[in-house]
Amino acid sequence: MDEFELIHRYFSAQSVHRDDVRLGIGDDAAILRVPAGQELIASVDSLVAGVHFPTDLPVAAIGHRSLAVNLSDLAAMGAQPAWALLALSMPQADAEWTQEFARGFFALAERYQIELVGGNLARGPLNITVTVHGFVTPGQALTRKGARPGDQVFVTGWLGDAAAGLQRLQAHAAVTETDSCVQRFCFPEPRIRAGLALRGIASAAVDVSDGLSADLGHLLEASGTGARLEVERLPLSPSLLQHGTREQAINMALSGGDDYELCFSVPSERMTLLESCEHELDCPVTRIGEITTEKTLRCLRHDRSQWPLPVAGYKHF
Amino acid sequence: MDEFELIHRYFSAQSVHRDDVRLGIGDDAAILRVPAGQELIASVDSLVAGVHFPTDLPVAAIGHRSLAVNLSDLAAMGAQPAWALLALSMPQADAEWTQEFARGFFALAERYQIELVGGNLARGPLNITVTVHGFVTPGQALTRKGARPGDQVFVTGWLGDAAAGLQRLQAHAAVTETDSCVQRFCFPEPRIRAGLALRGIASAAVDVSDGLSADLGHLLEASGTGARLEVERLPLSPSLLQHGTREQAINMALSGGDDYELCFSVPSERMTLLESCEHELDCPVTRIGEITTEKTLRCLRHDRSQWPLPVAGYKHF
Repeated sequence: MDEFELIHRYFSAQSVHRDDVRLGIGDDAAILRVPAGQELIASVDSLVAGVHFPTDLPVAAIGHRSLAVNLSDLAAMGAQPAWALLALSMPQADAEWTQEFARGFFALAERYQIELVGGNLARGPLNITVTVHGFVTPGQALTRKGARPGDQVFVTGWLGDAAAGLQRLQAHAAVTETDSCVQRFCFPEPRIRAGLALRGIASAAVDVSDGLSADLGHLLEASGTGARLEVERLPLSPSLLQHGTREQAINMALSGGDDYELCFSVPSERMTLLESCEHELDCPVTRIGEITTEKTLRCLRHDRSQWPLPVAGYKHF
Repeated sequence: MDEFELIHRYFSAQSVHRDDVRLGIGDDAAILRVPAGQELIASVDSLVAGVHFPTDLPVAAIGHRSLAVNLSDLAAMGAQPAWALLALSMPQADAEWTQEFARGFFALAERYQIELVGGNLARGPLNITVTVHGFVTPGQALTRKGARPGDQVFVTGWLGDAAAGLQRLQAHAAVTETDSCVQRFCFPEPRIRAGLALRGIASAAVDVSDGLSADLGHLLEASGTGARLEVERLPLSPSLLQHGTREQAINMALSGGDDYELCFSVPSERMTLLESCEHELDCPVTRIGEITTEKTLRCLRHDRSQWPLPVAGYKHF
């Protein structure tokens, strides 16, 4: 068996087999069944070696991240994940690398019962492009549009950890597996359960991939509103605070990418609904501000003084 | 407006707007509706610069090809195309390049009323990964499995042109736009209409992307059969025959990739159905052989002597 066949074998050896997959990997295309009455949610994302992750990242983490960043988009829409397609370009057929990649990819896929239904292997600079699909009941999808002045702004989990973790990785500091910021960069957790629980509660949602200020900015633009953030409310983890000043941590939380938390708005009349579903979210949520009519993003301290917004989030170029 | 915004503008400026797209490009994911009772067909393919096409290929051709190679997979399944997602990695934000790319991509998308519903732009070595979606009536999809001994083997159009065109491009010969082999490489025509017409007629189908012997080999393996090809029946274009011997042309037709024709099998009792639908195919079809119980692919001359099979088709690594 040659390397190429080994690689095919690693991708065929998945444990998830869904009833809605009539024909999976191995033909010219997959044949799939969207459950009756459900809408289909689809998204694509690429990870490029040296651009989106350091080339020496543990390979299982690359596998995990390539799926996680896509699942995060499903989470932001409030979708139930179902299927993935993987296009993998790598410099040479490397079975050992692929085995580790597949381990990370499928461990996450299993947790959400996602079946890999299509793939493409090519020779080329390392590039991993994943397309994911999920379902929502018609009209229930969360979008970036829909935030209204007076809605409260929330965020799941903790912000800034992944960006700090990436900095630590890049500094080649003695990185231990117990550094939770590094772990947050390597193995981000898509907030699927939070997204599902927020349907019918959040008026708008976005995932924080490029940094809070950048991604909340997208939500505000789509909704035609602004927001006032109370920067001292931003949820900061002990691990983030351990390695710098509180000011640095806040700036990391505002502009650092790769956290894959959800940022969402909730109308005041639905606040009790939010409270009653908190046990379904699988993570804490923190109120960090309020939607405003004035179409800007303002960051304030408790004493209402302006917090200078750090340089905007991740630039794709 | 910066380059990045220009690029976004080029991809937003599409003319196709489908009723089954509830939310297209611009949010975290697309919201789509599969028509009631239809199955979803999904496929992904990547083009890597310098691997799948010469880096100096006309940019509009890169755009066309990136969609065409995917549509060819839908054609092989007998699916009606609907939506595409595009993940584009390029070394730097290049608005001029993107405009040409989008021109080629959308010209083909328009012909088949395909809406681009999702995208991802990243910095990195040039890599274009497209995911396409289409629909079929349940049970009507063509697959590689289903060929039975005695079925006749057909191919659409002409074989070997694209491989010859690529050779001419690579030889930097004075390539004119009127060289139809070069045109076949640059602007392959996915056999969507043929695929649709062949539902209920073909017992198995595959698209010829890696070369006839390789792709027919996949069909035979999936069907658990073999085949006898009559090599002198292979459809060869005047342009292919113009630049070499008949033997070279036959070998190009057997092992050259990139033609994106359909190869399919038809049971004898459905031959009249095939004849009656020939006007719907939009291209000629040629009978080139027969499915056999013996599980090998044999290539024969008219005098029943063996034609030595050239080196197998495209290797992905």
